[in-house]
Amino acid sequence: MAFDPSSLKYDAAGLIPCIAQDHATGEVLMLAWMNADAVARTLETGRVTYWSRSRAAFWVKGETSGHVQRLVELRLDCDRDCLLALVNQTGPACHTNRRSCFYTAVREGDEMVISQPMG
Amino acid sequence: MAFDPSSLKYDAAGLIPCIAQDHATGEVLMLAWMNADAVARTLETGRVTYWSRSRAAFWVKGETSGHVQRLVELRLDCDRDCLLALVNQTGPACHTNRRSCFYTAVREGDEMVISQPMG
Repeated sequence: MAFDPSSLKYDAAGLIPCIAQDHATGEVLMLAWMNADAVARTLETGRVTYWSRSRAAFWVKGETSGHVQRLVELRLDCDRDCLLALVNQTGPACHTNRRSCFYTAVREGDEMVISQPMG
Repeated sequence: MAFDPSSLKYDAAGLIPCIAQDHATGEVLMLAWMNADAVARTLETGRVTYWSRSRAAFWVKGETSGHVQRLVELRLDCDRDCLLALVNQTGPACHTNRRSCFYTAVREGDEMVISQPMG
């Protein structure tokens, strides 16, 4: 069946969450949001493209930083309301210069930073 | 620093997305939503507890199906608006009886089912 971005379930703002996962290591890198056009652009270009809620603009990941996400495969979940992008990530995915945005763990009730910015 | 569930950033409905990832294999299993109480219950009980938007009730994963998610570690992202739960998943995470909800891939423009229900 041909995939149609408009067949996904978007929220009231027209957005769907997309998890980016490192294709090689399985590390979960980040979660950001796409609208239907961003989904289409991601598939067409192979460059993972989100919708920036704060800037209200397309966000071609790495366009300014160089920390590009190349799409390996896009998957959707059973409810068609969440995406999983398997990616080749150049450098850090996080704006703090860490590989993953999920660098804070809750351990014994405390927040612990478990990874450092890349050199 | 002590972790306080109320310090997370919730959406207008008081919810935050939580990605469940298999602790052993790195497979992304599902994404569901938590409110602050569900985050607290998850940490207190070690049983991953979501907020069901359709039922408007706590959803202790596996309570009826037996497909329990035991929390290994909870992580938060740099913006404090997304959670990553590393879990030990008993059986399938998906209501279709598949291990992961992300069993549909987009390949060459078509949707392809890439995993089958567990036996």
